[in-house]
Amino acid sequence: MPGVVRSVGQDGTRSASIRAAALELFARHGYEATTMADIGAAVGMRGPSLYKHVASKQDILARIMVGTMDALLDAHRVALLGVDDVTVALRRATEAHVRYHARHRLEAFVGNREIRGLTEGHRRAVLRRRASYENGFRQLITRGTEQDRFHVPSIRLASYAILDLGMGVANWYREDGELSEDQIVWHYGDLALRIAGATG
Amino acid sequence: MPGVVRSVGQDGTRSASIRAAALELFARHGYEATTMADIGAAVGMRGPSLYKHVASKQDILARIMVGTMDALLDAHRVALLGVDDVTVALRRATEAHVRYHARHRLEAFVGNREIRGLTEGHRRAVLRRRASYENGFRQLITRGTEQDRFHVPSIRLASYAILDLGMGVANWYREDGELSEDQIVWHYGDLALRIAGATG
Repeated sequence: MPGVVRSVGQDGTRSASIRAAALELFARHGYEATTMADIGAAVGMRGPSLYKHVASKQDILARIMVGTMDALLDAHRVALLGVDDVTVALRRATEAHVRYHARHRLEAFVGNREIRGLTEGHRRAVLRRRASYENGFRQLITRGTEQDRFHVPSIRLASYAILDLGMGVANWYREDGELSEDQIVWHYGDLALRIAGATG
Repeated sequence: MPGVVRSVGQDGTRSASIRAAALELFARHGYEATTMADIGAAVGMRGPSLYKHVASKQDILARIMVGTMDALLDAHRVALLGVDDVTVALRRATEAHVRYHARHRLEAFVGNREIRGLTEGHRRAVLRRRASYENGFRQLITRGTEQDRFHVPSIRLASYAILDLGMGVANWYREDGELSEDQIVWHYGDLALRIAGATG
Protein backbone atom coordinates (compact mmCIF):
# COMPACT_ATOMS: atom_id res chain seq x y z
CA MET A 1 0.00 0.00 0.00
CA PRO A 2 2.20 2.83 -1.23
CA GLY A 3 -0.31 5.46 -0.15
CA VAL A 4 -0.04 4.39 3.46
CA VAL A 5 3.72 4.17 3.32
CA ARG A 6 3.96 7.64 1.86
CA SER A 7 1.62 9.02 4.48
CA VAL A 8 3.71 7.45 7.28
CA GLY A 9 6.82 8.87 5.65
CA GLN A 10 5.32 12.35 5.47
CA ASP A 11 4.20 12.14 9.04
CA GLY A 12 7.70 11.10 10.13
CA THR A 13 9.20 13.99 8.19
CA ARG A 14 6.70 16.45 9.64
CA SER A 15 7.36 15.26 13.19
CA ALA A 16 11.09 15.55 12.58
CA SER A 17 10.67 19.12 11.24
CA ILE A 18 8.57 20.10 14.22
CA ARG A 19 11.15 18.63 16.59
CA ALA A 20 14.01 20.43 14.80
CA ALA A 21 12.18 23.77 14.81
CA ALA A 22 11.26 23.39 18.48
CA LEU A 23 14.84 22.49 19.39
CA GLU A 24 16.12 25.64 17.68
CA LEU A 25 13.50 27.80 19.43
CA PHE A 26 14.07 26.21 22.85
CA ALA A 27 17.83 26.80 22.45
CA ARG A 28 17.37 30.42 21.36
CA HIS A 29 14.57 31.62 23.63
CA GLY A 30 14.24 28.94 26.31
CA TYR A 31 11.48 26.36 26.67
CA GLU A 32 9.22 28.53 28.78
CA ALA A 33 9.34 31.54 26.45
CA THR A 34 8.57 29.41 23.37
CA THR A 35 4.90 28.86 22.47
CA MET A 36 3.28 26.19 20.30
CA ALA A 37 2.28 29.08 18.01
CA ASP A 38 6.00 29.95 17.59
CA ILE A 39 6.76 26.34 16.73
CA GLY A 40 3.83 26.19 14.31
CA ALA A 41 4.95 29.41 12.61
CA ALA A 42 8.50 28.05 12.20
CA VAL A 43 7.21 25.00 10.28
CA GLY A 44 4.31 26.77 8.55
CA MET A 45 1.55 24.90 10.39
CA ARG A 46 -1.46 26.14 12.33
CA GLY A 47 -2.63 24.77 15.68
CA PRO A 48 -4.99 21.98 14.59
CA SER A 49 -2.59 20.37 12.09
CA LEU A 50 0.36 20.84 14.49
CA TYR A 51 -1.53 18.93 17.20
CA LYS A 52 -2.04 16.01 14.80
CA HIS A 53 1.71 15.41 15.08
CA VAL A 54 2.55 16.32 18.66
CA ALA A 55 0.46 16.27 21.82
CA SER A 56 1.97 19.35 23.48
CA LYS A 57 5.08 21.50 23.94
CA GLN A 58 5.95 19.32 26.94
CA ASP A 59 5.69 16.24 24.72
CA ILE A 60 8.21 17.75 22.27
CA LEU A 61 10.65 18.65 25.06
CA ALA A 62 10.38 15.17 26.58
CA ARG A 63 11.01 13.53 23.21
CA ILE A 64 14.08 15.71 22.66
CA MET A 65 15.54 15.05 26.10
CA VAL A 66 14.71 11.34 26.36
CA GLY A 67 15.80 10.88 22.75
CA THR A 68 19.14 12.56 23.45
CA MET A 69 19.86 10.25 26.38
CA ASP A 70 18.79 7.17 24.40
CA ALA A 71 21.11 8.19 21.56
CA LEU A 72 24.01 8.64 24.00
CA LEU A 73 23.34 5.29 25.68
CA ASP A 74 23.20 3.64 22.30
CA ALA A 75 26.45 5.27 21.12
CA HIS A 76 28.11 4.13 24.35
CA ARG A 77 26.92 0.54 23.87
CA VAL A 78 28.09 0.43 20.27
CA ALA A 79 31.49 1.94 21.20
CA LEU A 80 32.10 -0.90 23.66
CA LEU A 81 30.94 -3.80 21.45
CA GLY A 82 33.58 -6.53 21.45
CA VAL A 83 36.11 -4.45 23.40
CA ASP A 84 37.79 -6.22 26.32
CA ASP A 85 40.75 -3.99 27.20
CA VAL A 86 39.59 -1.39 29.71
CA THR A 87 41.90 1.35 28.38
CA VAL A 88 40.58 0.90 24.86
CA ALA A 89 37.05 0.82 26.26
CA LEU A 90 37.42 4.11 28.13
CA ARG A 91 38.99 5.74 25.09
CA ARG A 92 36.18 4.56 22.81
CA ALA A 93 33.42 5.52 25.23
CA THR A 94 34.94 9.01 25.56
CA GLU A 95 35.30 9.36 21.82
CA ALA A 96 31.64 8.44 21.30
CA HIS A 97 30.64 10.89 24.04
CA VAL A 98 32.66 13.78 22.61
CA ARG A 99 31.59 13.08 19.03
CA TYR A 100 27.92 13.07 20.01
CA HIS A 101 28.30 16.42 21.77
CA ALA A 102 30.18 17.99 18.86
CA ARG A 103 27.39 16.88 16.50
CA HIS A 104 24.37 17.59 18.70
CA ARG A 105 25.17 20.89 20.35
CA LEU A 106 21.60 22.16 20.55
CA GLU A 107 20.35 18.89 22.08
CA ALA A 108 23.15 19.08 24.66
CA PHE A 109 22.44 22.74 25.40
CA VAL A 110 18.68 22.27 25.79
CA GLY A 111 19.14 18.95 27.62
CA ASN A 112 21.42 20.66 30.12
CA ARG A 113 19.31 23.70 30.82
CA GLU A 114 15.69 22.56 30.55
CA ILE A 115 15.59 19.67 33.01
CA ARG A 116 13.43 21.85 35.26
CA GLY A 117 10.97 22.38 32.41
CA LEU A 118 10.05 18.68 32.36
CA THR A 119 7.07 17.37 34.28
CA GLU A 120 7.81 14.87 37.04
CA GLY A 121 7.41 11.64 35.03
CA HIS A 122 9.49 12.88 32.11
CA ARG A 123 12.14 14.26 34.44
CA ARG A 124 12.43 10.88 36.14
CA ALA A 125 12.80 9.19 32.76
CA VAL A 126 15.65 11.54 31.79
CA LEU A 127 17.40 11.34 35.18
CA ARG A 128 17.22 7.52 35.15
CA ARG A 129 18.94 7.48 31.76
CA ARG A 130 21.53 10.03 32.86
CA ALA A 131 22.36 7.94 35.94
CA SER A 132 22.70 4.86 33.79
CA TYR A 133 24.97 6.68 31.33
CA GLU A 134 27.17 8.09 34.08
CA ASN A 135 27.27 4.66 35.67
CA GLY A 136 28.70 3.21 32.45
CA PHE A 137 31.75 5.48 32.79
CA ARG A 138 32.02 4.83 36.50
CA GLN A 139 32.03 1.06 35.93
CA LEU A 140 34.80 1.37 33.36
CA ILE A 141 36.94 3.39 35.76
CA THR A 142 36.17 0.97 38.59
CA ARG A 143 37.20 -1.99 36.44
CA GLY A 144 40.40 -0.26 35.35
CA THR A 145 41.20 0.54 38.98
CA GLU A 146 40.61 -3.07 40.05
CA GLN A 147 42.94 -4.21 37.28
CA ASP A 148 45.55 -1.69 38.50
CA ARG A 149 45.41 -0.03 35.06
CA PHE A 150 43.76 3.22 36.21
CA HIS A 151 44.73 5.30 39.23
CA VAL A 152 42.33 8.00 40.39
CA PRO A 153 41.83 9.93 43.62
CA SER A 154 38.04 9.47 43.26
CA ILE A 155 36.23 7.22 40.77
CA ARG A 156 33.15 9.41 40.94
CA LEU A 157 35.06 12.65 40.24
CA ALA A 158 37.03 11.08 37.41
CA SER A 159 33.82 9.95 35.71
CA TYR A 160 32.17 13.34 36.20
CA ALA A 161 35.28 15.05 34.82
CA ILE A 162 35.29 12.94 31.66
CA LEU A 163 31.57 13.50 31.10
CA ASP A 164 31.93 17.26 31.65
CA LEU A 165 34.67 17.43 29.00
CA GLY A 166 32.19 16.22 26.41
CA MET A 167 29.49 18.59 27.50
CA GLY A 168 31.99 21.44 27.29
CA VAL A 169 32.69 20.54 23.66
CA ALA A 170 29.01 21.17 22.89
CA ASN A 171 29.46 24.72 24.17
CA TRP A 172 32.44 25.80 22.13
CA TYR A 173 32.82 23.46 19.14
CA ARG A 174 32.25 25.00 15.69
CA GLU A 175 32.46 23.12 12.38
CA ASP A 176 34.59 25.90 10.92
CA GLY A 177 36.85 26.12 13.98
CA GLU A 178 40.60 25.62 14.15
CA LEU A 179 40.37 21.95 15.13
CA SER A 180 38.43 19.27 13.29
CA GLU A 181 35.90 17.01 14.97
CA ASP A 182 38.27 14.06 14.63
CA GLN A 183 41.19 15.94 16.20
CA ILE A 184 39.06 16.96 19.16
CA VAL A 185 37.63 13.47 19.57
CA TRP A 186 41.10 11.90 19.46
CA HIS A 187 42.71 14.39 21.83
CA TYR A 188 39.87 14.14 24.32
CA GLY A 189 40.21 10.35 24.29
CA ASP A 190 43.82 10.94 25.38
CA LEU A 191 42.75 13.42 28.06
CA ALA A 192 40.25 10.90 29.48
CA LEU A 193 43.07 8.35 29.87
CA ARG A 194 45.16 11.00 31.61
CA ILE A 195 42.27 11.79 33.96
CA ALA A 196 41.95 8.08 34.68
CA GLY A 197 45.69 7.90 35.40
CA ALA A 198 45.99 5.09 32.83
CA THR A 199 49.27 3.19 32.79
CA GLY A 200 50.67 0.49 30.55
CA MET B 1 26.30 61.96 57.96
CA PRO B 2 24.84 58.68 59.18
CA GLY B 3 21.57 59.25 57.34
CA VAL B 4 23.28 59.35 53.97
CA VAL B 5 25.41 56.34 54.78
CA ARG B 6 22.36 54.37 55.80
CA SER B 7 20.52 55.35 52.66
CA VAL B 8 23.48 54.23 50.50
CA GLY B 9 23.60 51.00 52.48
CA GLN B 10 19.90 50.36 51.94
CA ASP B 11 20.22 51.06 48.27
CA GLY B 12 23.14 48.63 48.01
CA THR B 13 21.14 46.00 49.88
CA ARG B 14 18.09 46.56 47.72
CA SER B 15 20.13 46.28 44.51
CA ALA B 16 21.72 43.09 45.81
CA SER B 17 18.28 41.62 46.65
CA ILE B 18 16.96 42.51 43.21
CA ARG B 19 19.99 40.93 41.58
CA ALA B 20 19.64 37.76 43.68
CA ALA B 21 15.92 37.44 42.95
CA ALA B 22 16.49 38.01 39.23
CA LEU B 23 19.29 35.44 39.17
CA GLU B 24 17.01 32.83 40.73
CA LEU B 25 14.21 33.63 38.27
CA PHE B 26 16.52 33.66 35.23
CA ALA B 27 17.90 30.28 36.31
CA ARG B 28 14.45 28.78 36.88
CA HIS B 29 12.44 30.21 33.97
CA GLY B 30 15.03 31.64 31.59
CA TYR B 31 15.79 35.33 30.97
CA GLU B 32 13.23 35.78 28.23
CA ALA B 33 10.33 34.26 30.19
CA THR B 34 11.08 36.41 33.27
CA THR B 35 9.45 39.85 33.48
CA MET B 36 10.37 42.89 35.55
CA ALA B 37 6.99 42.37 37.27
CA ASP B 38 8.12 38.87 38.32
CA ILE B 39 11.34 40.31 39.72
CA GLY B 40 9.45 43.08 41.51
CA ALA B 41 7.02 40.54 43.03
CA ALA B 42 9.93 38.42 44.28
CA VAL B 43 11.39 41.36 46.24
CA GLY B 44 8.05 42.96 47.14
CA MET B 45 8.54 46.08 45.00
CA ARG B 46 6.32 47.72 42.39
CA GLY B 47 7.52 49.06 39.04
CA PRO B 48 8.38 52.69 39.94
CA SER B 49 10.46 51.82 43.03
CA LEU B 50 12.10 48.88 41.24
CA TYR B 51 13.24 51.19 38.43
CA LYS B 52 14.92 53.46 40.97
CA HIS B 53 17.43 50.65 41.53
CA VAL B 54 17.83 49.09 38.10
CA ALA B 55 17.41 50.52 34.61
CA SER B 56 16.00 47.39 32.95
CA LYS B 57 15.92 43.60 32.90
CA GLN B 58 18.78 43.75 30.38
CA ASP B 59 20.75 45.87 32.82
CA ILE B 60 20.33 43.24 35.56
CA LEU B 61 21.41 40.42 33.23
CA ALA B 62 24.45 42.40 32.08
CA ARG B 63 25.48 43.15 35.68
CA ILE B 64 25.16 39.46 36.57
CA MET B 65 27.17 38.25 33.58
CA VAL B 66 29.87 40.94 33.56
CA GLY B 67 30.10 40.70 37.36
CA THR B 68 30.59 36.92 37.15
CA MET B 69 33.47 37.27 34.70
CA ASP B 70 35.05 40.07 36.74
CA ALA B 71 34.87 37.90 39.86
CA LEU B 72 36.49 34.98 38.01
CA LEU B 73 39.25 37.20 36.60
CA ASP B 74 39.88 38.59 40.06
CA ALA B 75 39.98 35.12 41.67
CA HIS B 76 42.45 34.03 38.98
CA ARG B 77 44.68 37.04 39.59
CA VAL B 78 44.67 36.51 43.35
CA ALA B 79 45.40 32.78 42.97
CA LEU B 80 48.56 33.56 41.00
CA LEU B 81 49.92 36.35 43.23
CA GLY B 82 53.55 35.67 44.08
CA VAL B 83 53.54 32.22 42.44
CA ASP B 84 56.47 31.47 40.14
CA ASP B 85 56.36 27.72 39.63
CA VAL B 86 54.08 26.95 36.67
CA THR B 87 52.76 23.70 38.13
CA VAL B 88 51.74 25.42 41.36
CA ALA B 89 50.24 28.24 39.29
CA LEU B 90 48.07 25.90 37.18
CA ARG B 91 46.94 24.03 40.28
CA ARG B 92 45.99 27.26 42.06
CA ALA B 93 44.24 28.77 39.04
CA THR B 94 42.21 25.56 38.65
CA GLU B 95 41.36 25.46 42.33
CA ALA B 96 40.11 29.07 42.19
CA HIS B 97 38.11 28.25 39.06
CA VAL B 98 36.48 25.15 40.54
CA ARG B 99 35.79 26.81 43.90
CA TYR B 100 34.07 29.75 42.20
CA HIS B 101 31.85 27.40 40.19
CA ALA B 102 30.95 25.31 43.25
CA ARG B 103 29.93 28.48 45.10
CA HIS B 104 28.20 30.34 42.27
CA ARG B 105 26.23 27.68 40.48
CA LEU B 106 23.34 29.92 39.43
CA GLU B 107 25.69 32.58 38.04
CA ALA B 108 27.52 29.89 36.07
CA PHE B 109 24.27 28.38 34.80
CA VAL B 110 22.77 31.71 33.72
CA GLY B 111 26.13 32.96 32.39
CA ASN B 112 26.41 29.87 30.24
CA ARG B 113 22.93 29.86 28.78
CA GLU B 114 21.91 33.52 28.45
CA ILE B 115 24.76 34.93 26.36
CA ARG B 116 22.25 35.26 23.51
CA GLY B 117 19.97 37.32 25.72
CA LEU B 118 22.55 40.12 25.98
CA THR B 119 22.46 43.11 23.66
CA GLU B 120 25.46 43.58 21.40
CA GLY B 121 27.52 45.89 23.64
CA HIS B 122 26.99 43.79 26.75
CA ARG B 123 27.71 40.60 24.85
CA ARG B 124 31.00 42.03 23.63
CA ALA B 125 31.91 43.03 27.20
CA VAL B 126 31.28 39.47 28.43
CA LEU B 127 33.02 37.76 25.51
CA ARG B 128 36.08 40.01 25.93
CA ARG B 129 36.35 38.98 29.57
CA ARG B 130 35.81 35.30 28.73
CA ALA B 131 38.58 35.44 26.14
CA SER B 132 40.89 37.09 28.64
CA TYR B 133 40.08 34.46 31.28
CA GLU B 134 40.60 31.57 28.89
CA ASN B 135 43.83 33.19 27.74
CA GLY B 136 45.13 33.16 31.33
CA PHE B 137 44.92 29.35 31.36
CA ARG B 138 46.33 29.08 27.87
CA GLN B 139 49.34 31.21 28.85
CA LEU B 140 50.02 29.02 31.86
CA ILE B 141 49.96 25.88 29.75
CA THR B 142 52.12 27.55 27.10
CA ARG B 143 54.66 28.55 29.72
CA GLY B 144 54.71 25.06 31.23
CA THR B 145 55.19 23.56 27.78
CA GLU B 146 58.07 25.91 26.99
CA GLN B 147 59.70 24.92 30.28
CA ASP B 148 59.21 21.25 29.36
CA ARG B 149 57.09 20.82 32.49
CA PHE B 150 53.77 20.27 30.68
CA HIS B 151 53.15 17.98 27.70
CA VAL B 152 49.88 18.35 25.80
CA PRO B 153 48.67 17.37 22.34
CA SER B 154 47.00 20.79 21.98
CA ILE B 155 47.42 23.80 24.29
CA ARG B 156 44.02 25.13 23.28
CA LEU B 157 42.20 21.86 23.99
CA ALA B 158 43.97 21.38 27.31
CA SER B 159 42.90 24.87 28.44
CA TYR B 160 39.31 24.30 27.26
CA ALA B 161 39.24 20.94 29.04
CA ILE B 162 40.37 22.44 32.35
CA LEU B 163 37.84 25.27 32.09
CA ASP B 164 35.04 22.85 31.22
CA LEU B 165 35.79 20.78 34.32
CA GLY B 166 34.97 23.77 36.49
CA MET B 167 31.81 24.59 34.62
CA GLY B 168 30.73 20.97 35.02
CA VAL B 169 31.12 21.29 38.79
CA ALA B 170 28.51 24.09 38.74
CA ASN B 171 26.06 21.62 37.18
CA TRP B 172 26.31 18.78 39.66
CA TYR B 173 27.84 20.08 42.90
CA ARG B 174 25.58 20.09 45.97
CA GLU B 175 26.61 21.31 49.45
CA ASP B 176 25.10 18.18 51.01
CA GLY B 177 26.71 15.85 48.45
CA GLU B 178 29.11 13.00 49.10
CA LEU B 179 32.24 15.09 48.49
CA SER B 180 33.08 18.37 50.18
CA GLU B 181 33.97 21.52 48.28
CA ASP B 182 37.59 21.21 49.41
CA GLN B 183 37.86 17.59 48.28
CA ILE B 184 36.51 18.47 44.85
CA VAL B 185 38.75 21.54 44.54
CA TRP B 186 41.82 19.53 45.50
CA HIS B 187 41.07 16.56 43.24
CA TYR B 188 40.29 18.79 40.28
CA GLY B 189 43.60 20.59 40.81
CA ASP B 190 45.22 17.16 40.41
CA LEU B 191 43.16 16.38 37.32
CA ALA B 192 44.21 19.69 35.72
CA LEU B 193 47.87 18.72 36.16
CA ARG B 194 47.12 15.34 34.60
CA ILE B 195 45.43 17.02 31.66
CA ALA B 196 48.49 19.27 31.29
CA GLY B 197 50.73 16.19 31.37
CA ALA B 198 52.71 17.77 34.23
CA THR B 199 55.98 16.11 35.13
CA GLY B 200 58.54 16.72 37.86
